[in-house]
Amino acid sequence: MFDPSQFGAMLGSMQDSIKELEERNQQTTLTAKSGGGLVSVSANGNGEIIDISIDDSLLEDKESLQILLMSAFNDLRKSVEENRQSSAMNLLGNLGGLNIFGGKPNA
Amino acid sequence: MFDPSQFGAMLGSMQDSIKELEERNQQTTLTAKSGGGLVSVSANGNGEIIDISIDDSLLEDKESLQILLMSAFNDLRKSVEENRQSSAMNLLGNLGGLNIFGGKPNA
Repeated sequence: MFDPSQFGAMLGSMQDSIKELEERNQQTTLTAKSGGGLVSVSANGNGEIIDISIDDSLLEDKESLQILLMSAFNDLRKSVEENRQSSAMNLLGNLGGLNIFGGKPNA
Repeated sequence: MFDPSQFGAMLGSMQDSIKELEERNQQTTLTAKSGGGLVSVSANGNGEIIDISIDDSLLEDKESLQILLMSAFNDLRKSVEENRQSSAMNLLGNLGGLNIFGGKPNA
């Protein structure tokens, strides 16, 4: 039988988990490099760019600098997306314990 | 009464809409600038970086270049997220027409 009080508990627990996820993502650092490390860009788990480092040699070659920046940022974007998806999957897994249809899970 | 055949139609229509959304995002260009235009970065609606342009004057000042790049990318990320959310809302709005519980919507 559907148990509304359990539903409220689940929503509350979901909100807590999402908040915890965002805080954990804030502490996570993801980095991507290109040009064998000539360009290195870092973001937190929420995708916010927190560091960019450019090798001095690239200041002589703007074309390559722009290409290597694009490549590093696009790699970083993929890592951020992958990290987001895997942490969202973990979140859903953790909510699996709650049984909103009442009764013992193996009744 | 719940009409399963309508549910299949809804899923099919949702998948078409998501595909159409991604194609439309692929054609969308979002741009962010910093330093009064000294740095300009562009991405498509899916967040893929498609262009970076750096003013020559910044090649003499790596510190400012790195700071302006970070600021432009973080602004761009916000525009991409806002664009994604508004197109997702439109998508959900369009699906509102389907009535999976059978009968006339205002029966």
